Amino acid sequence: MSNTRRLVIVGGVAAGMSAAARARRLDEHAEIVVLEQSDYVSFANCGLPYHLSGEIERREDLLLHTPESLRAALALDVRTGSRVTAIDRDAREVTVATADGEYRLGYDALLLAPGAVAVRPPIDGLDDPAVHTLRTVPDVDALLARVGERPGRAVVIGAGFIGLEAVEALAGRGVEVALVELADHVLPPLDVELAPLLADELRAHGVTLHLGLSARAVTTGDDGTVVTLSDGSRLPADLVVLSVGVRPASDLARDAGLALGDRGGIRVDGDQRTSDPHIWAAGDVVEVTSAVTGATGPVPLAGPANRQGRRAAESMLGHRTTPQAPVLGTAIVRVFGQTAAVTGASPATLDRAGIPHETVRVHGGHHAGYFPGAEQVHLVASFAPDGRLLGAQAVGRAGVDKRIDVLATALRAGMTADDLAELELAYAPPYGSAKDPVNMLGFVAQNVLDGTMPQWHAADADRVLADSLVLDVRSRAEYDRGHLPGALLIPHTELRGRIEQVRAAAAGRPVAVHCASGVRSHIATRVLIQHGLDARNLSGGWLSLDLARPDLTRRHSGD
Amino acid sequence: MSNTRRLVIVGGVAAGMSAAARARRLDEHAEIVVLEQSDYVSFANCGLPYHLSGEIERREDLLLHTPESLRAALALDVRTGSRVTAIDRDAREVTVATADGEYRLGYDALLLAPGAVAVRPPIDGLDDPAVHTLRTVPDVDALLARVGERPGRAVVIGAGFIGLEAVEALAGRGVEVALVELADHVLPPLDVELAPLLADELRAHGVTLHLGLSARAVTTGDDGTVVTLSDGSRLPADLVVLSVGVRPASDLARDAGLALGDRGGIRVDGDQRTSDPHIWAAGDVVEVTSAVTGATGPVPLAGPANRQGRRAAESMLGHRTTPQAPVLGTAIVRVFGQTAAVTGASPATLDRAGIPHETVRVHGGHHAGYFPGAEQVHLVASFAPDGRLLGAQAVGRAGVDKRIDVLATALRAGMTADDLAELELAYAPPYGSAKDPVNMLGFVAQNVLDGTMPQWHAADADRVLADSLVLDVRSRAEYDRGHLPGALLIPHTELRGRIEQVRAAAAGRPVAVHCASGVRSHIATRVLIQHGLDARNLSGGWLSLDLARPDLTRRHSGD
Repeated sequence: MSNTRRLVIVGGVAAGMSAAARARRLDEHAEIVVLEQSDYVSFANCGLPYHLSGEIERREDLLLHTPESLRAALALDVRTGSRVTAIDRDAREVTVATADGEYRLGYDALLLAPGAVAVRPPIDGLDDPAVHTLRTVPDVDALLARVGERPGRAVVIGAGFIGLEAVEALAGRGVEVALVELADHVLPPLDVELAPLLADELRAHGVTLHLGLSARAVTTGDDGTVVTLSDGSRLPADLVVLSVGVRPASDLARDAGLALGDRGGIRVDGDQRTSDPHIWAAGDVVEVTSAVTGATGPVPLAGPANRQGRRAAESMLGHRTTPQAPVLGTAIVRVFGQTAAVTGASPATLDRAGIPHETVRVHGGHHAGYFPGAEQVHLVASFAPDGRLLGAQAVGRAGVDKRIDVLATALRAGMTADDLAELELAYAPPYGSAKDPVNMLGFVAQNVLDGTMPQWHAADADRVLADSLVLDVRSRAEYDRGHLPGALLIPHTELRGRIEQVRAAAAGRPVAVHCASGVRSHIATRVLIQHGLDARNLSGGWLSLDLARPDLTRRHSGD
Repeated sequence: MSNTRRLVIVGGVAAGMSAAARARRLDEHAEIVVLEQSDYVSFANCGLPYHLSGEIERREDLLLHTPESLRAALALDVRTGSRVTAIDRDAREVTVATADGEYRLGYDALLLAPGAVAVRPPIDGLDDPAVHTLRTVPDVDALLARVGERPGRAVVIGAGFIGLEAVEALAGRGVEVALVELADHVLPPLDVELAPLLADELRAHGVTLHLGLSARAVTTGDDGTVVTLSDGSRLPADLVVLSVGVRPASDLARDAGLALGDRGGIRVDGDQRTSDPHIWAAGDVVEVTSAVTGATGPVPLAGPANRQGRRAAESMLGHRTTPQAPVLGTAIVRVFGQTAAVTGASPATLDRAGIPHETVRVHGGHHAGYFPGAEQVHLVASFAPDGRLLGAQAVGRAGVDKRIDVLATALRAGMTADDLAELELAYAPPYGSAKDPVNMLGFVAQNVLDGTMPQWHAADADRVLADSLVLDVRSRAEYDRGHLPGALLIPHTELRGRIEQVRAAAAGRPVAVHCASGVRSHIATRVLIQHGLDARNLSGGWLSLDLARPDLTRRHSGD
């Protein structure tokens, strides 16, 4: 243990409070001062939307600790209403502004954990009192006061994690919600072919979606507040929630001359130390490295923030640390009855980063199909050519968190498709399948990567329709409920007797096979390949096609 | 692809049918013959108890395929009612016995996947018609016929996974169940300090437990059937279920001179090949290696069986295989409202194998504590001195399967306590916590392994009571509801002012600290250590003590 006398921690929520608690447990004798600019420390940041929804009924349940409880349990000197306005690195002092004036406070080790602030995009009228954010306890107080006035309509700007939680909370309060998102699908980090499941769920709960559009202005006149979108449309609103992301609260660090990354996060080493050896930083304010793409930037997530705070305390006190691992970006959100979760890189992120990959899609039961109540887990995973897992996304009504947590663990471990195939997960009919959907991802990826099963993707549909024979190996009844234009129907059980019919129809073209989810068409594709045809299997089958290209799957229903 | 012409597969359920399906997909031209001695192939073995309970209502839902459907989909030649009685390895032929007589069938590659058979322990009267097993479709037919006669009482012999599922199913049918288990706790693979949670749940549903006892005889007389136990007690029964485990159905392999392991499983290499280069084996009949202890023996689990079958097919056809990984033994069971799951080695197994380890216990919410409905997940994990995870067990009402699947993945990856601490799992309040219980296992293990937090265990209670000062740092109210004899009460928030009182009371003895779950006592232990006292923290706190030593925790209530 070092001789550190006074630790000063700027910010008293996730990273800052984890650091303070860990520091005290490691060093009973250090003076630990926590400076928090708001009136609240250690509050349940991620719980705010669920207090807005009313699920967390009591406001005090969000306030996990007070300065008094922290003094009693951990002998911390927690000062709320205390904003640090400057760092004097030579004198090792911070300037603290309070309601009663300013003072200077010396430190032996300083931790910056001020978090992030809401991004304020270039929208006219953001200071309109109808506009809210959902980041702090006062934010949720203000929103709840507004909800108490029984607003009829709300506009939520931004369909990321917090935006979706806000939508769900407001809709649950009986507010009619319009959701505006610049990207072409809700939850931009999610795979584009999974996002429609969330869009459908939002619409089923009365939410109006405005995708591929931005807000241009918020104006309040005699007839109330209106949000004007980039296409000129006007959305009336009794309240507006702005949730277009956050940026690191790194102004203090920048003013003090600490090294920042391109995207404004404080640069830290594996022990959370900044470019000043007496200053550490942790949480939403720091820059991290993506485990998959190697990109650097802030990733505002509670789990990493807590662990960074813990690590910073260890390093400040000279204790053994676990160096920071690159961040996976594991995240999850509930959208009414659906859950969506991601870890690692999405196919779109890999494409943008120019990282070669194969993407596979599995629609598997969250438990054994023969056990009642099985819900489909829709899984997407991407693999490097050498088989290494690069990322996974999932949507479904049950079992999504489990699969993403397993995949996040596999990703952290550097596992491959072979490893996923061999994972030994807990199986009894109420919990899973002998071949879990995660195992299935591994099996499918093995077949794709070693060339046993070439595949085509819903995104290729236009090209495939132009240059291939589409072979539909579902049943006649499934075909009659909807099929691709020009598709040849041969149920998979009849295929072996009708190979020459396929060969003739293909007339030298590739054969694009599909069934409902990819299982029967896998067999069919293998049959055709072994009879010398150039066959490929539609990844994720009709289920994926229906999500990616509803124009194709619904247009031809019953024709 | 090799020139294999005829693949013969003995056994048409998990391993055998996985092999047949994989073989057909890899080789459209091979002749694939499946010989199944029963009348059923590809049935949902693990679903049988849930058909007995009535949750899987329709018997046909258990029968996933028929010989006809398998011929149509996969061009398999499936022959039920076909028992292989001998292997002529020189001629490469098997002898097949059917209702219509015997015949010989040549093979180019032979896969043995006959599964396991129920162990018949030395109990008099096992042929009594009241005695049932629960392994096959006819078994469940017979049990359901018996249940239809509205039996009042059942005795289940054996409290392993299948035994517990049988108990639950019968109790759910209104039958009064007595459960007999030779070990001193239900579900012997489970940690002894978690098993009481299942015992309590069983008793709460009216099940009578007879632990540490074996059945000696089953007798049916004028006054019905009676099971006599090793202590002489007599349990009246209208039906008896025998579920004391299974043994590999390796008689055929042994008669053919194939190498078997000490425990009767067929020896195979990493590609499932037996000591005969033309014969493979997979599923419950083979011997596997434990990933943690290195012990060899059969491990009858559906997941590994399926993957072994798949691998055997690949190897038989000369396709690339993923060599078999040592088995973790991941397993799960539902017991009314509780779930219990295990992966890797339990503390008791590690003790028996002489493998050094530290065991830590965490009682954590299955999601954020401030979000309504949080259920406790009771977790136990063991780590090698170098930090490597060796095994984990869990019991709880929600979120158990997720944690064990994450831990099974971590175990497969060779992760350490540091790695668990850094796992980036999906967090939003309805799904988890920023510091998931799995992360907490890592944090606690780090502190134990690096000496930051010495611990004591409930199993040490007698010694600790004899030689240590017990310091209870809970609140007065918690203390008043029950405490250890001679415990000194100092709520953790008062400890810093009363260090000298502790020193005086300890009088040179070690200080055994505890709170409810180990969190407050962790702080207290650190305070005492840094004031020069020899303090240790009770792993898992009062919650674990109450499970392990109810005699201690309940006796002193309110004194």
